[in-house]
Amino acid sequence: MTETVLVLNGPNLNLLGVREPEIYGRDTLDDIKKRCVDQGRKHGLEVDFRQSNSEATLIDWLHEARGTKVGVAINPAGLSFHSIALLDALKMFDGPKVEVHITNIHKREPMYQKSLMSHGVTGVIAGLGATGYVLAIDALAEFAKAGKA
Amino acid sequence: MTETVLVLNGPNLNLLGVREPEIYGRDTLDDIKKRCVDQGRKHGLEVDFRQSNSEATLIDWLHEARGTKVGVAINPAGLSFHSIALLDALKMFDGPKVEVHITNIHKREPMYQKSLMSHGVTGVIAGLGATGYVLAIDALAEFAKAGKA
Amino acid sequence: MTETVLVLNGPNLNLLGVREPEIYGRDTLDDIKKRCVDQGRKHGLEVDFRQSNSEATLIDWLHEARGTKVGVAINPAGLSFHSIALLDALKMFDGPKVEVHITNIHKREPMYQKSLMSHGVTGVIAGLGATGYVLAIDALAEFAKAGKA
Amino acid sequence: MTETVLVLNGPNLNLLGVREPEIYGRDTLDDIKKRCVDQGRKHGLEVDFRQSNSEATLIDWLHEARGTKVGVAINPAGLSFHSIALLDALKMFDGPKVEVHITNIHKREPMYQKSLMSHGVTGVIAGLGATGYVLAIDALAEFAKAGKA
Amino acid sequence: MTETVLVLNGPNLNLLGVREPEIYGRDTLDDIKKRCVDQGRKHGLEVDFRQSNSEATLIDWLHEARGTKVGVAINPAGLSFHSIALLDALKMFDGPKVEVHITNIHKREPMYQKSLMSHGVTGVIAGLGATGYVLAIDALAEFAKAGKA
Amino acid sequence: MTETVLVLNGPNLNLLGVREPEIYGRDTLDDIKKRCVDQGRKHGLEVDFRQSNSEATLIDWLHEARGTKVGVAINPAGLSFHSIALLDALKMFDGPKVEVHITNIHKREPMYQKSLMSHGVTGVIAGLGATGYVLAIDALAEFAKAGKA
Amino acid sequence: MTETVLVLNGPNLNLLGVREPEIYGRDTLDDIKKRCVDQGRKHGLEVDFRQSNSEATLIDWLHEARGTKVGVAINPAGLSFHSIALLDALKMFDGPKVEVHITNIHKREPMYQKSLMSHGVTGVIAGLGATGYVLAIDALAEFAKAGKA
Amino acid sequence: MTETVLVLNGPNLNLLGVREPEIYGRDTLDDIKKRCVDQGRKHGLEVDFRQSNSEATLIDWLHEARGTKVGVAINPAGLSFHSIALLDALKMFDGPKVEVHITNIHKREPMYQKSLMSHGVTGVIAGLGATGYVLAIDALAEFAKAGKA
Amino acid sequence: MTETVLVLNGPNLNLLGVREPEIYGRDTLDDIKKRCVDQGRKHGLEVDFRQSNSEATLIDWLHEARGTKVGVAINPAGLSFHSIALLDALKMFDGPKVEVHITNIHKREPMYQKSLMSHGVTGVIAGLGATGYVLAIDALAEFAKAGKA
Amino acid sequence: MTETVLVLNGPNLNLLGVREPEIYGRDTLDDIKKRCVDQGRKHGLEVDFRQSNSEATLIDWLHEARGTKVGVAINPAGLSFHSIALLDALKMFDGPKVEVHITNIHKREPMYQKSLMSHGVTGVIAGLGATGYVLAIDALAEFAKAGKA
Amino acid sequence: MTETVLVLNGPNLNLLGVREPEIYGRDTLDDIKKRCVDQGRKHGLEVDFRQSNSEATLIDWLHEARGTKVGVAINPAGLSFHSIALLDALKMFDGPKVEVHITNIHKREPMYQKSLMSHGVTGVIAGLGATGYVLAIDALAEFAKAGKA
Amino acid sequence: MTETVLVLNGPNLNLLGVREPEIYGRDTLDDIKKRCVDQGRKHGLEVDFRQSNSEATLIDWLHEARGTKVGVAINPAGLSFHSIALLDALKMFDGPKVEVHITNIHKREPMYQKSLMSHGVTGVIAGLGATGYVLAIDALAEFAKAGKA
Repeated sequence: MTETVLVLNGPNLNLLGVREPEIYGRDTLDDIKKRCVDQGRKHGLEVDFRQSNSEATLIDWLHEARGTKVGVAINPAGLSFHSIALLDALKMFDGPKVEVHITNIHKREPMYQKSLMSHGVTGVIAGLGATGYVLAIDALAEFAKAGKA
Repeated sequence: MTETVLVLNGPNLNLLGVREPEIYGRDTLDDIKKRCVDQGRKHGLEVDFRQSNSEATLIDWLHEARGTKVGVAINPAGLSFHSIALLDALKMFDGPKVEVHITNIHKREPMYQKSLMSHGVTGVIAGLGATGYVLAIDALAEFAKAGKA
Repeated sequence: MTETVLVLNGPNLNLLGVREPEIYGRDTLDDIKKRCVDQGRKHGLEVDFRQSNSEATLIDWLHEARGTKVGVAINPAGLSFHSIALLDALKMFDGPKVEVHITNIHKREPMYQKSLMSHGVTGVIAGLGATGYVLAIDALAEFAKAGKA
Repeated sequence: MTETVLVLNGPNLNLLGVREPEIYGRDTLDDIKKRCVDQGRKHGLEVDFRQSNSEATLIDWLHEARGTKVGVAINPAGLSFHSIALLDALKMFDGPKVEVHITNIHKREPMYQKSLMSHGVTGVIAGLGATGYVLAIDALAEFAKAGKA
Repeated sequence: MTETVLVLNGPNLNLLGVREPEIYGRDTLDDIKKRCVDQGRKHGLEVDFRQSNSEATLIDWLHEARGTKVGVAINPAGLSFHSIALLDALKMFDGPKVEVHITNIHKREPMYQKSLMSHGVTGVIAGLGATGYVLAIDALAEFAKAGKA
Repeated sequence: MTETVLVLNGPNLNLLGVREPEIYGRDTLDDIKKRCVDQGRKHGLEVDFRQSNSEATLIDWLHEARGTKVGVAINPAGLSFHSIALLDALKMFDGPKVEVHITNIHKREPMYQKSLMSHGVTGVIAGLGATGYVLAIDALAEFAKAGKA
Repeated sequence: MTETVLVLNGPNLNLLGVREPEIYGRDTLDDIKKRCVDQGRKHGLEVDFRQSNSEATLIDWLHEARGTKVGVAINPAGLSFHSIALLDALKMFDGPKVEVHITNIHKREPMYQKSLMSHGVTGVIAGLGATGYVLAIDALAEFAKAGKA
Repeated sequence: MTETVLVLNGPNLNLLGVREPEIYGRDTLDDIKKRCVDQGRKHGLEVDFRQSNSEATLIDWLHEARGTKVGVAINPAGLSFHSIALLDALKMFDGPKVEVHITNIHKREPMYQKSLMSHGVTGVIAGLGATGYVLAIDALAEFAKAGKA
Repeated sequence: MTETVLVLNGPNLNLLGVREPEIYGRDTLDDIKKRCVDQGRKHGLEVDFRQSNSEATLIDWLHEARGTKVGVAINPAGLSFHSIALLDALKMFDGPKVEVHITNIHKREPMYQKSLMSHGVTGVIAGLGATGYVLAIDALAEFAKAGKA
Repeated sequence: MTETVLVLNGPNLNLLGVREPEIYGRDTLDDIKKRCVDQGRKHGLEVDFRQSNSEATLIDWLHEARGTKVGVAINPAGLSFHSIALLDALKMFDGPKVEVHITNIHKREPMYQKSLMSHGVTGVIAGLGATGYVLAIDALAEFAKAGKA
Repeated sequence: MTETVLVLNGPNLNLLGVREPEIYGRDTLDDIKKRCVDQGRKHGLEVDFRQSNSEATLIDWLHEARGTKVGVAINPAGLSFHSIALLDALKMFDGPKVEVHITNIHKREPMYQKSLMSHGVTGVIAGLGATGYVLAIDALAEFAKAGKA
Repeated sequence: MTETVLVLNGPNLNLLGVREPEIYGRDTLDDIKKRCVDQGRKHGLEVDFRQSNSEATLIDWLHEARGTKVGVAINPAGLSFHSIALLDALKMFDGPKVEVHITNIHKREPMYQKSLMSHGVTGVIAGLGATGYVLAIDALAEFAKAGKA
């Protein structure tokens, strides 16, 4: 049976590509999904790619992932900066977790510089655009392989 | 076809008039809705007036407003002080946006003094009670007219 | 007619007992519910025990409690630290309110040390594990009795 | 006898329209005065419109307004951010007071974000350009009417 | 032989009931002592109830409690906010420790909001008035029972 | 020839007695002037008592006092909290200087708690109402006598 | 029967005159006591003048003063900057209270600039040396007289 | 026609040379004026040298300089640290602007270390005494020449 | 001619694998170099891999890279947190730059949480161990390809 | 006559060796006293070694030491972090003073990192366990010898 | 024998003119060197002009300057903001020292606003471009002349 | 074979004795070296005593010390306050490490009060002048002996 990684996207990412493209680029979320699924396939992994504007839904999905997914990539978007509820849900998932930000949040305005989510993940990739998602799939694949070895 | 402005109300405002009336006054949200609709009519504008306790729903409504509404007035209530997700959604609406607070938040307890939402709006009206909504309609009408001129 | 107290549980508490048990202990939420219901019965009180991962749902439940419940116990979990929307809803409930935390949040990492909710409740019980809920029921029962006297 | 509202303008506003027009717009102070006087007339109010670069003069004018004006609108400009002397003078005027800022100060550089004056006024209008003055006249008119009723 | 719990009271609590009763209530320390002793009796525990205005005396009493008491409840009063010496003494008592505050310190003036003592105790009960002491006895009894089981 | 002390009063003190009397009391500035002059007479000192709303005028008066007055009492009012220009002028007067505040500024709102002027004066008297001025005259008289001895 | 005022002196003041005389001057505590007693006599008041290095003793003395003294002057010395226990005791004395500091603490090193005690007293006199005590007696005498009038 | 540069001096500089000479040196303002005028002459520039203790007057002079002066040197003295009104006036002058401080403010007490004015000027010269003014004239001359080239 | 990417390693990384292996893992810098060179080869890129304990040497190498390398990956190690000199050198390289940290610095002790270097790079990869370097090569390869397209 | 050095120990040090031995080690205070007395003997110095849980007693002992002891070593324990009263007493002893901490306080939790006492002593030794006391005796002996030379 | 002044340039200044020219201008370091040497010649001074990317080398050069140079001008570039080692070296040079910054650092991003070096120099010139170096030579020449007079 | 301890000295210490002698004393680094070597001899230890102005060199020397030295004493001088690179190198040496400061840094200006290095060492000795080095040798000797026992 194929192992699955979960890729979660937080608030407003449904409008990626149209939203402030000078900041976030012109890739749509569907473009990114396609790249993730393709990249997963190279590693023999299924990619379950979802988006929600609701903190509660994202938490529910993280709960479901416990024991059913081999890794999680998450772009928490605007929730990165205050949602300790989401952070707590991330901490409850035992497998590898990679936080992805399309922009280099560390050089944006102060309120966007520090993601609380980073306290609950294995690693962080920021500022590499849509490519960051693809690299996260690579990292999760490597962690999954290492876990089985 | 009549142009429409969207008026959004955040958490707990459904209980306006009964909630801490010594702070928020005795106008109910229906009273305010009526005043907004009447004021819109004077400017030849339809007013779409909504309330939700859910950050995600408010974000969805802001997404819908893109390209369909000529302006947005929003009282983000308790979400004003931390929801960068809502702020990001506000930034994605290109038209004029007015933030309204019934009380003068700037002289309340420290945690209520600084609205993050202000970074994503055209202007702010605070402390003028229900009248603040009416003035916001006036401002949006003027912006709409100016935009067409 | 039996009086009722409402016991609310915030995000991630549905996984209590399995989540970071070295921090939160091995009691499940159902164990705690049972203890609360039993304790309420000793005081002649019904206990309405609920959990949600959604801030909006918790706010709705607090609105419903106005005029129908004689007291509220709430473990706001991860929402404790930023949700002014939930705080505002707490302030709108006029009866006695007890905030419960399973762990002693005051000695955890800095971002978990200061609950904003404390500004909207009668009292706080932290660090006494599942027993904290039982003591909250006792306190609410006493307040209810005092209110009738 | 016609009731009067006082509109005060602080330092550098005499050069409005020529000063950093990309920030403050191209309306001159005379343009704004004319709009205020016209708007006052619609409400049956006289508008006494003044400007000074001197903190002391603004304080004197606020003292004079006690008992002779039915409301005050003030754009304190650069004094907004430190003049507790002006704040104290505002607190001494008992009627309705509206603080007006042409720009949305809350999203400017940090030193312009927090007006101390807000602690001494009824309400604040920021970021709506010259229109903010007109809305302030509306608000004062409504307060004046309400006060008489 | 009956097991004993120690209940310590810090500075100024000897005047409880007369001191700022609008903040601290009208129960005297003797009233509270009586309630604690009674509650202890229900659990088969002796209650050793003491008060001192002296930090050194409270420290001495905590030293004595090592190995002779099964639990400690402490209302450190004004020492809560700076006495690391008292905190160190608390840390040296190995059994269960409950910190009690009559008022909800977390919503008082800033200098009263953060008790340093919380770093050295098992749990905290605040804002439940004299009842807080009774609940602390309950919690200590339960810990004692659990410890023996 | 009679020696003179200068008593300076800053912005808004001309309205003392009518301004927020629940905070500042009902003594007018003329009442206080009379008490100061009388008290000076007891010490064989003339009292030159002035008020201005203008920082520049106060600075000018302090410059004049150099070499002509034996001491200065000053209530800088709202200028206390930011005017380094006034502080610099105070530092340039070599004789004894007493800062007077009618209210106990140290327990008011944070922005009123720390007077910068205190860095430039001999001593500070706060919270003793109009009596504070009289005590300042006493202190200056004593300093003057000591200076001559 | 003669009314009495209590004058309290905190830690290290027993060595006044020998301790860092370039900061605290050369008056001994006995010199100051004598000046206070003499000044009290002028007002028909007895002066009860005490010193202790112990926070607890000072608290006990403040408790005793309740109902037996017509006013309190206190130089809390090193306890000024952290002892909330002493502050609480001060708040429990209902009569007039004057805090005295020999030096102008507001211009010393940062850790000496802000006395917490100021939150619990009527007024503060700082920087006027031994004379500050005498002025405090004057102020208490005036408050006592006003209280009887 | 000779081009002119404006040299402005803020509060208390009229007493330069007599004021805290151990900090500010013994040059009087007239000495400095003479050096500036001479230096201007070397560059073929007239020097208009003024001083005022009034923030409003300095603002007026900056307004006048618009379009009539080829450069401004300003020593804002005590206004440097809080006057956003003066900063705004500086920003409104389009030509080259040099801020001069006689002392090296960056190593003085904290409240003197950060000049807000620096946000509105081309460059800053501090700590070089009266010579700083002369160098400012040189810099303005060079900017003026460059502007014409 | 083959294009080259530069991989720079800062202080102490020469001891990678032996240094605090519980934090930094057991891969040596040679292991990582080998993985980088291999990964570069897959993309047709040469990898120039260097380490220095000297800030100046790292700066020199960045200067050399201008115009000769198609991208830079850098693990600034302990220099990340204070070296504005290194940051300035990074800003001077115009091509794509990826900052790599072996550990997730964002959840380490506070002094390790905020890399200043992030202000000067395209993107950041943290917490993915040696794999982070490999992903950085991938990202640089993609940027290089995109730059040529 | 033999010269004496005073070694003072603050709160909770009477329980050294039993208190949190994983932090403070297993040496008892008597073990340390013996080492200090022995080391003093090597230098021909008597060692007066004391402990108290009372701030007031420690202050008294420091007062006594004036003129009778040639040096002071002090481990202020929990009082290190807030007792300005103890700091003031330290400043009043003119001879050499060495502050000793058994643990390296500078790398403990934030509230233990900064000893206020360090402002009143000659030097500080921290983190060297019981040996730190012995080194302090050495240092005091050297200072005493140098003082006599 | 000709007297010499040392002009030091810190990290990255070797690339001046090509590095972010929109911020730092198009003058190369050689252009500036030439202007400095020429200006020195006018004052009869030799100019020793150096640049290094190494903090240690700059420190060594400052050590060498002791007793051999009559003044130092230094542009510490990126070291300005953290290198206390360089600051200490500056303090060890007894002659006049002028810190030069090409840009007006005080209005750049926060991390560039406060130079620690300013604590160790006579004066600071910022924001006047390459001309700032020339003015520094002038100032050093004047100091040198004054020193000899 | 004789065991060796390494004594490292950071920037500017080569000029000890001539540099600000009123702060750092008149002992030269050679004087201190001699005292260290002598003291080592008493313990049968060789002392390898070095100084460098270069952070990189100090790091290299710490790397070399791994496995070849039985202890390290280090006076990091100006690097103490920012060099996390040096701190990381210290952490990589497994044996006992003593940080030495000639002055009592904890009572100097704020930027010198907190050494980051303290997070990476066993203990700290500050303010005891050259003697501090000797005591550090003693401590290292004792640790070395204990390690062998």
